[in-house]
Amino acid sequence: MSEIFKKHLEKFIEIEDWEFSGILAFFQIKKVKKKENLLEEGQICKSHYFVLNGCLRKFFINRKGTEQTTEFAIESWWITDNFAFERGMSTEFYIQAVEKSEILIIDREAQEKLLIEFPKMERYFRFVYQRSYAASQMRIKYLYDFSKEESYYHLYNAHPEFVQRIPQYLIASFLGFSPEYLSEIRNKNRS
Amino acid sequence: MSEIFKKHLEKFIEIEDWEFSGILAFFQIKKVKKKENLLEEGQICKSHYFVLNGCLRKFFINRKGTEQTTEFAIESWWITDNFAFERGMSTEFYIQAVEKSEILIIDREAQEKLLIEFPKMERYFRFVYQRSYAASQMRIKYLYDFSKEESYYHLYNAHPEFVQRIPQYLIASFLGFSPEYLSEIRNKNRS
Repeated sequence: MSEIFKKHLEKFIEIEDWEFSGILAFFQIKKVKKKENLLEEGQICKSHYFVLNGCLRKFFINRKGTEQTTEFAIESWWITDNFAFERGMSTEFYIQAVEKSEILIIDREAQEKLLIEFPKMERYFRFVYQRSYAASQMRIKYLYDFSKEESYYHLYNAHPEFVQRIPQYLIASFLGFSPEYLSEIRNKNRS
Repeated sequence: MSEIFKKHLEKFIEIEDWEFSGILAFFQIKKVKKKENLLEEGQICKSHYFVLNGCLRKFFINRKGTEQTTEFAIESWWITDNFAFERGMSTEFYIQAVEKSEILIIDREAQEKLLIEFPKMERYFRFVYQRSYAASQMRIKYLYDFSKEESYYHLYNAHPEFVQRIPQYLIASFLGFSPEYLSEIRNKNRS
């Protein structure tokens, strides 16, 4: 299973088997059940999660008391509340398994030690954060620019399998509208 | 002037004078006039900009034909269209000087060579991207969660000097509302 992580590392850096064993020793592997929470609002955000299989999501409870999903992570994606993680602060978010998942977990102190012991991991994480930042800059543009309907079609066209795979009420939550409105858009498209 | 860049590097990595000279050789220094465009929609995004003094902003032209500001960069901030920069693609954004500014510019190929020649710069850029990503994740939360009025007060409380310094129509553009609406909020607060 950890082969998925090795393959992801090899997209960005060259890595020997002995190095990979050393790197992997900094992580715990964990199986999580569907709907299990890895992090809850108010807790200190201690960990960074890498998805080996399955799917996690990040959400917060908005002032209407409903769950607003801000992020998903499928295979080979990292997820955490990066702001709280770096500072060892409490979080405003939840991280929950959308599906039964298998994940790697690294704590903040372990991640810092990993970077010192294996400096090539600086290059790996530089790429991970660079791409995540670039994606979130585009996301901010779309949040300003797209109508609700356009944001659905943009997501659908970019990631059709993902939209099929994830429960529709979570897609609606991610796009910031109600499940009813999402059905309306989808029905309009069918007719 | 490049001392500002050295100080920023030293926040994250230890650096000798001879190394700093070597690093600086990868950059051009440039003075830009107020309202000068460094990047325009449709151009290949070749460069990454570090602000030594002054202020840059990033915006796109939305479907109403108005400028939607998505980002500012003041002293010691990096700015580019990261998505297009990494891929050597054309951009959907403009980058423009808000004030007369002095900046460092590095092109993509130069940045790649810099990282190879000075591997400790991987650690520096890992921090830069990690923090930028964390900030943009919080920004996405606020875009979902805050009313227009709250988003103004949040920005004002977090960066009062910045809000005073920047022309109010640009603050309005960044927050996604009209200059008139911004005056209304400010007047309401005064009365």
